[in-house]
Amino acid sequence: MRLVRFQVEESDTPLSGIYADDHVTVMVGDPYSGMIVGTSEKYPVDQIHLLPPCVPTKVVAVGLNYRDHAAELGMPIPEEPLIFLKPPSSVTGPGKPIKCPKMSNQVEYEGELGVVIGQRTKKVAASSTKNYILGYTCLNDVTARDLQKKDVQFTRAKSFDTFCPIGPWIETELDPSNLRIQSRVNGQTRQDSSTSQLIHSVYDLISFISHVMTLEPGDVIATGTPKGVGPLNKGDRVEIEVEGIGVLENTVR
Amino acid sequence: MRLVRFQVEESDTPLSGIYADDHVTVMVGDPYSGMIVGTSEKYPVDQIHLLPPCVPTKVVAVGLNYRDHAAELGMPIPEEPLIFLKPPSSVTGPGKPIKCPKMSNQVEYEGELGVVIGQRTKKVAASSTKNYILGYTCLNDVTARDLQKKDVQFTRAKSFDTFCPIGPWIETELDPSNLRIQSRVNGQTRQDSSTSQLIHSVYDLISFISHVMTLEPGDVIATGTPKGVGPLNKGDRVEIEVEGIGVLENTVR
Repeated sequence: MRLVRFQVEESDTPLSGIYADDHVTVMVGDPYSGMIVGTSEKYPVDQIHLLPPCVPTKVVAVGLNYRDHAAELGMPIPEEPLIFLKPPSSVTGPGKPIKCPKMSNQVEYEGELGVVIGQRTKKVAASSTKNYILGYTCLNDVTARDLQKKDVQFTRAKSFDTFCPIGPWIETELDPSNLRIQSRVNGQTRQDSSTSQLIHSVYDLISFISHVMTLEPGDVIATGTPKGVGPLNKGDRVEIEVEGIGVLENTVR
Repeated sequence: MRLVRFQVEESDTPLSGIYADDHVTVMVGDPYSGMIVGTSEKYPVDQIHLLPPCVPTKVVAVGLNYRDHAAELGMPIPEEPLIFLKPPSSVTGPGKPIKCPKMSNQVEYEGELGVVIGQRTKKVAASSTKNYILGYTCLNDVTARDLQKKDVQFTRAKSFDTFCPIGPWIETELDPSNLRIQSRVNGQTRQDSSTSQLIHSVYDLISFISHVMTLEPGDVIATGTPKGVGPLNKGDRVEIEVEGIGVLENTVR
């Protein structure tokens, strides 16, 4: 099932829906409680504006979680997950612009599998985390590489408004263990790997993070990016595709 | 004016109020819009439980922002503010326990002046930031020092649940430029400095951060800690006092 948030007109109140074939069915209730019901209200997909599919209180991201990417940056593989945060204000939706800040001259894409939390998750064993996941989405962990190197702390480089596109939807039926993940810039493939290359698996990550901080419904885990990160320039069209989910597309402004 | 959030019984819906003398007056409306009105409902202060005085979507903290603290850690003074994030899940209120995680053997206090944002703040000049501030509070940027050193990234070390006590209230009438700031553990003074020693002033910080990320009403800026950071052990009572605001007290569990 593909869960979306959307507007019909940009000034409208956001609606929740299920995306299937060429239309979206409006649903009522709360997907995080499992109590959702489709209505008879439907819209053709070309008449809606997709929004970020969830509203996280935090985005917890993981650095250096693909062996090939750690090697590419010349950084050692962390023995434990290396976590950092992206603020809710950095989140944007599919089709929305990524805005390059004046502070940076080197903005880069990082294609990632995003995990959307379904219920409050606190100190959960890896073997149980599956029950706490609502579903999966595509995520672009946009990074000002020059500021990341300058600050050492990742925060500024990864926190600009629009630096966390997520979407296009939350796919609720998916095994995250072996999914092809690709990034394309203007149609050219730049990243092409598989979640089977993750150093710390999705379930291990959520367990680890849940022992540090309580995760809330709608919170997003960015599971790390494979090798092949590279620059974005104004006008570029960047696509993050995860097998079994779909394509998240944004244009750089 | 001292703005508080509180409960009469711990199961009650949180109320907003104005704290004065020995009682709290319940208020209605939205302090962030400036439209608040006191009611005739009052409670003696010894009959209420104070909550964190605001509900931030993010806590943006600043590293190494007192010259004496940078020297203490042997770290160079950053030429620009060095920012990091603490998640909303780390926020706790006055009187609440700080819980030491099993992952760390070295939990430390960091007393700080907290700034509470009053309205959406995006790319604002330092000369105008005063208009975007609702008020000031005390903040304890609790840090697992061993994990901070191990990870290099500050996130895990500073993100555990209960690692961001704020309170006891938001003081709306205050000049932040020269306030004594002290930390005490079991009554013994450990930090004693002044906000006049800030490398980047409150107004400069908010302007800088607002050029990275949009700040929302209720968001909190932790402005950095002076020298004298040190360990907390189970059973310790830690107090952060900022002149003109009051005392934030928590006990370590």
